[in-house]
Amino acid sequence: MKTINLVEKFERISEPWSPRIVAELNGSHVKLAKFKGEFIWHAHEREDEMFLVIEGSIRIRLEDRELTVGAGELAVIPRGVRHLPIADEEAKVLMLEPASTVNTGDETASERTVQAVWI
Amino acid sequence: MKTINLVEKFERISEPWSPRIVAELNGSHVKLAKFKGEFIWHAHEREDEMFLVIEGSIRIRLEDRELTVGAGELAVIPRGVRHLPIADEEAKVLMLEPASTVNTGDETASERTVQAVWI
Repeated sequence: MKTINLVEKFERISEPWSPRIVAELNGSHVKLAKFKGEFIWHAHEREDEMFLVIEGSIRIRLEDRELTVGAGELAVIPRGVRHLPIADEEAKVLMLEPASTVNTGDETASERTVQAVWI
Repeated sequence: MKTINLVEKFERISEPWSPRIVAELNGSHVKLAKFKGEFIWHAHEREDEMFLVIEGSIRIRLEDRELTVGAGELAVIPRGVRHLPIADEEAKVLMLEPASTVNTGDETASERTVQAVWI
């Protein structure tokens, strides 16, 4: 049990779209990631996903509309919903999702697919 | 699906130690609460609990030591661990815990026990 400082953890992340795990609870991981540019369209079949923006602003494109999530705001993307995360400028994002979650969801063969590791 | 602004939500909370639900994912609730003063010692038998401090600073007293969690920091209290949350000055805290979680854990007869409602 220890206190986790988000600023310090983000300093250890350079690569965008590469989530790092900072905490685990109830089978879910708290992950930090830098978003920059456009990710890929994907969905998570069995996992709801929370995005809490710590710094900057992101857009989450959905099939019928787009959410803007700024610093101090959060959004939950329910399982099965296809979405495309975008950050026009670099943004720092805390994500919460089941430990089983793959960053690219059903697009497992994407070059964006990475295994999240602890920092 | 919508964007949830934490500042706006916190404006709707006046009473300390009275968590309000703002989002649900994977069977867990994201709750907001104002902490002020001393809560009560308790443990959650089956639920890990995350505290992410949005504004101010809190202390989480454990049986053998104490964690300080400031703005931009988080801590996870694993199931079964007795803890006493304290805020010397009012603090704004985002909590994540299973939907089944009671705020006072095993101390269900406390006058502090409240049913969390959505805002």
